[in-house]
Amino acid sequence: MTTQEVADWWGTAVSRIEPNRIELRGTPVQDLIGTVGFGSMIWLMVRGERPTPAQSRLLEAALVAGVDHGPHAPSIAVARMAATCGVGLNNAMASAINTLGDSHGGAGQQCVELLDDIRERVAAGVAVPAATDEVIAGWRARGIRYLPGFGHRFHTRDPRRDPLLALVDEAVTDRTVEGGHLRAARAVEEALNRGRSRPVPMNIDGATAVIYAELGFPAPLARGLFVLSRSVGILAHAWEETGQGRRNKGPIPPSVRPTFLG
Amino acid sequence: MTTQEVADWWGTAVSRIEPNRIELRGTPVQDLIGTVGFGSMIWLMVRGERPTPAQSRLLEAALVAGVDHGPHAPSIAVARMAATCGVGLNNAMASAINTLGDSHGGAGQQCVELLDDIRERVAAGVAVPAATDEVIAGWRARGIRYLPGFGHRFHTRDPRRDPLLALVDEAVTDRTVEGGHLRAARAVEEALNRGRSRPVPMNIDGATAVIYAELGFPAPLARGLFVLSRSVGILAHAWEETGQGRRNKGPIPPSVRPTFLG
Amino acid sequence: MTTQEVADWWGTAVSRIEPNRIELRGTPVQDLIGTVGFGSMIWLMVRGERPTPAQSRLLEAALVAGVDHGPHAPSIAVARMAATCGVGLNNAMASAINTLGDSHGGAGQQCVELLDDIRERVAAGVAVPAATDEVIAGWRARGIRYLPGFGHRFHTRDPRRDPLLALVDEAVTDRTVEGGHLRAARAVEEALNRGRSRPVPMNIDGATAVIYAELGFPAPLARGLFVLSRSVGILAHAWEETGQGRRNKGPIPPSVRPTFLG
Amino acid sequence: MTTQEVADWWGTAVSRIEPNRIELRGTPVQDLIGTVGFGSMIWLMVRGERPTPAQSRLLEAALVAGVDHGPHAPSIAVARMAATCGVGLNNAMASAINTLGDSHGGAGQQCVELLDDIRERVAAGVAVPAATDEVIAGWRARGIRYLPGFGHRFHTRDPRRDPLLALVDEAVTDRTVEGGHLRAARAVEEALNRGRSRPVPMNIDGATAVIYAELGFPAPLARGLFVLSRSVGILAHAWEETGQGRRNKGPIPPSVRPTFLG
Repeated sequence: MTTQEVADWWGTAVSRIEPNRIELRGTPVQDLIGTVGFGSMIWLMVRGERPTPAQSRLLEAALVAGVDHGPHAPSIAVARMAATCGVGLNNAMASAINTLGDSHGGAGQQCVELLDDIRERVAAGVAVPAATDEVIAGWRARGIRYLPGFGHRFHTRDPRRDPLLALVDEAVTDRTVEGGHLRAARAVEEALNRGRSRPVPMNIDGATAVIYAELGFPAPLARGLFVLSRSVGILAHAWEETGQGRRNKGPIPPSVRPTFLG
Repeated sequence: MTTQEVADWWGTAVSRIEPNRIELRGTPVQDLIGTVGFGSMIWLMVRGERPTPAQSRLLEAALVAGVDHGPHAPSIAVARMAATCGVGLNNAMASAINTLGDSHGGAGQQCVELLDDIRERVAAGVAVPAATDEVIAGWRARGIRYLPGFGHRFHTRDPRRDPLLALVDEAVTDRTVEGGHLRAARAVEEALNRGRSRPVPMNIDGATAVIYAELGFPAPLARGLFVLSRSVGILAHAWEETGQGRRNKGPIPPSVRPTFLG
Repeated sequence: MTTQEVADWWGTAVSRIEPNRIELRGTPVQDLIGTVGFGSMIWLMVRGERPTPAQSRLLEAALVAGVDHGPHAPSIAVARMAATCGVGLNNAMASAINTLGDSHGGAGQQCVELLDDIRERVAAGVAVPAATDEVIAGWRARGIRYLPGFGHRFHTRDPRRDPLLALVDEAVTDRTVEGGHLRAARAVEEALNRGRSRPVPMNIDGATAVIYAELGFPAPLARGLFVLSRSVGILAHAWEETGQGRRNKGPIPPSVRPTFLG
Repeated sequence: MTTQEVADWWGTAVSRIEPNRIELRGTPVQDLIGTVGFGSMIWLMVRGERPTPAQSRLLEAALVAGVDHGPHAPSIAVARMAATCGVGLNNAMASAINTLGDSHGGAGQQCVELLDDIRERVAAGVAVPAATDEVIAGWRARGIRYLPGFGHRFHTRDPRRDPLLALVDEAVTDRTVEGGHLRAARAVEEALNRGRSRPVPMNIDGATAVIYAELGFPAPLARGLFVLSRSVGILAHAWEETGQGRRNKGPIPPSVRPTFLG
C-alpha cells in the first residue's frame, strides 16, 4: 500500500491542510479571513477563483432572494417540525435540506438546463425566437406542462422577479454578464404568454437561474446554491420554533385535528 | 375548526407570505434584494434586525473561517462519498450537515456556554481569573479533559486563530463589541497554559465562539451558523467529487483495501 | 503506511467480506438466507449471536407494535411531505428517521435507563418500591414532570400496552426472560398512580422498553430498534403519498390556509 | 375551513388512530402484536394485505440477504463515521440511509424495471430470448454498459445469488410465485454471457429484484425494501463504532494519512 494511492483517492483542489497551514483554493486561510465577504467565499470555494465585486453582488442578490417562502414550504415545515423532536439544530436543518429535491429545489437547475439549451441553438445560428419555440416544444413533447422557472401557483407575479431581473439588466449594461441567458428567459416568457389572457411570468427559480447561468455556474450548482440560500430560512425557522417549546409538533394543531387522526 | 388556530400553529415572525407579497422579518423582499449582502441577510433572518456594517463584517469573517478543513473531516468525507451514490446534491449536503453533531459541529456552541458562564460570574462580581478557574474546575469535575474551543489534535497553532482574534480586538477598539467574551477566552487560554511546556491555544471553535458570543448570538446559534459556514465547503467538495465520476466511493481506495474488507 | 493500520481503522466483528465470500457475524451468508427470519437476523447483526425462537418472537412483537402511529407524528408527516419533493424514497425515509430524536424516538431509550437504574438499586439490596420511589424522586428533582414510557397525551390507555405486557408475562413464566424490568415498570406505574384519580399508564415506549431491556439490549438500542420498527410505517406512508401525485405538499391544505401563510 | 379538508389532506389507508384505538391497515394493533412476524408486518403495511407464510418466507430471505456488505460500502462507512460525531443513533442511521441512492440502493429498482419490460414484451407475444435481446439493446443504446443486477466489481460470483434463486425455484414449484421474472432474469444472464469467457452473473440486486418482482412489489419498493434491509447493517455498524469511542472518525487512520490531508 502506498501513501500516494490514498492521497489520490482523497485528492482535492478545494483545500490543502498541513500542520499549522490551511489553504483554501490555494490561498492561505489567514489571507481570506476579514478580507473576503461570505458571498465571494462561496464563489471562490465552488469555482476556484475569486469573483469581481460586481459578480459577487449579483450572486448575493440571488442568494438573498431565495432564503424563505414561509412555513408552508415543505423545507421550512420540516425544519420546524424536526426542531421539536429533540435533535440537534444541524439535524433539523439536514432533514429540511434533504427535501430540496427535483420538484422543490430542482426547478432552478432545470431552468438553467432549459436556458442553456436555447443558448446552444442560438450559438449554432438559430434565431432566439425559433430556438425558444423548439426548446419549449421539446419540453411539451415530454409531457411537461409547467416549464421550470415560469408561473407560480400562489403569486400572479412573484415580487422577487423584477428586482432580480433589474440587477441582471444593470449587469448586462456594465458588461458584468453577457446577457444571453436573460434574453433566452425573456423569450420563453413571451412565448408562454403569446395569446394568453393570464400571463405565466418568470418566477424566483427562473430569475435566479438567469443569474446563476449568466455568472457561469453549471446547472447542478443552481440547486447547490439554492441549498445555501434556503438554509438561512431553515435555520431562522428552526431556531424560532425551538424557542416556542413545542414537543413533537405535527402538521395540524391537536385542537382542530380530526378525531381519527390521533 | 378555526383558521386562527391553524394560523397560530404555523405562526412566525420570520416571514409573511401573501399573494404577490413576501415580507422577510417585516421588510418586503424587493427592498432587500440587491441592497443587503448575504451575511447581513443571515443576521436579519436569524435575529430579526439588521446588523451594522461592522457587525456584519465580523460575522462574515467567522463564516469564512469555518468553510472547510479538508476531506478527512467526517462532514466533508461524507459529502464526497454521498455524492457518488446517485443522490441529489441537496441530499449529499444533508447527509454531511447531519454529521455536524456535538463533537464535530458542537464545540463552538459548548465554548459559548463556557464563556457565558465566566461572563455571568464576572457580572456577579468575581474577578476574571477566579471566575475562569471556577468554570474550568467545573468542567474538569465533570470528567472533561479537553475544553471546547481549545487545543487541536492536528495544528499546534490553528492558523485561523490569530486573524479572527485580531478582528475582535479591532471591534473592541471601535466599540462594535464589548470585549468580555474575548477576555474570558483569553483567560481560559492563560489558565490552560499555566505551567505547561506545550501550549493549548484557542482553536477555530474558540475564536468563532468569541465572535458569535460578542455579537450576541445565543450558544445554539454557534452551531447553526457553523452549519451555514461549513455547508459551503460541503458543496464545493460534493461538486468536485461529482465531476470525478466515481460510483459508490468507499473510504479506502480498492487497490489498497485489505482483501477481507471487500 | 501498512495495510494493518487501515484494516484496524475499519475493523469490525459485524461482517467479513472476501471475494465470493460474505460472513455476517461469523456465519456465511448462504447459511442464513432462507433459514433465519428477519427478526432473528436483526438480533444476530446487532448482538453477534442468534436468539432463541422465544426471544425472537418477543423482539418481533415489539417491532410490530411501533411501526406507525398515524400521519400527525412528525416522523410520518415528514416522510409524506418529503416524498412529494422529488427525492428518492430512501431520501424521504432518511428525512423522517432523522426526526426520531430524544423526544420522539428517545423515550424508549430513556425508559430503559430508568428501569436499569431501579434494577441496579434492587440488585444492591433495596426493595423494589423504595428503589422505585428513589428513582422517580431523582427524575422529579431534575425538573422532569412526565417520566419516559408513562402516560399519553392522546390515549388514556394505549392499546399496545396490554398485549405487549401479556407477552412479557408469558415470557417470564416460560423463563425466556427474568422479569425484573417488568416488575420495575409496574412499580413505577403503581407509584405514579398512587392517590391519583386519572391514571398514568405505561405507554408503547414503556412496554417496548420493558421488552428490549428484558431481552438484554442496552438502552441506546431501544432507539435503534425503534428506528427499524418505525421505518416500516415511514416507508408505507411515503409510498402511499407518492401514489397520490402531490407536489411539494405543505402541512395545511392550500384551500384552508390562512391567506398570509402563502 | 372544514375539518373534512384537513382530514382529506392527511387522509391515509395505512393507519387510523382514535383515542385508545390504533388500526393498522384496518386491523386493530392488538390483533397484530404477537401474532404477526416482522416480515409479514412489513408486507401488510406496504401492501395493505397479509402475505401467505410462503410469501413472507421469500420476502424475509431477500431482506436477510441485503443487510450488510462490509464497511467499505458508502452506506456503512457513513454510518460508522456519523456515529462518532456526537449525534443520535437515529441521525447516524439517517445519514447512511440517505446514501442509498440511484447507484447504491437503486440497482434493485432499476432491475425490476428491466425485468418488467421483458415481461411486458413476452406478454405481448414476443419470445423470451428475443424480448430479452430487445431490452438489453435498449439499455445499450442509452449508453449503459453495466446492466443493473448483473456483474459485481468484487465477487466473480456473489455468494447470495444461488441460495436466493434456489428459494425462487422452490416458490415456482409450489406455485407461490409464477416464475416469469425469474425466467427473464436468467435470460438476461444467458444473453450477457453468450460468447464471453468471463461470465457476468446475476448479483444480489438482481436476485432480490427477482424476488420482489415475483412477489408483486412495484419497482420503487425494491429500493424501499432494500432500505429496511440495509438499515439493519447500518444499525449494527453504527452501534459497534459507538462502542469503540472514537471521535470524528475520518476515512483514513491519522497515522497513515498523507501530511497534506490534515
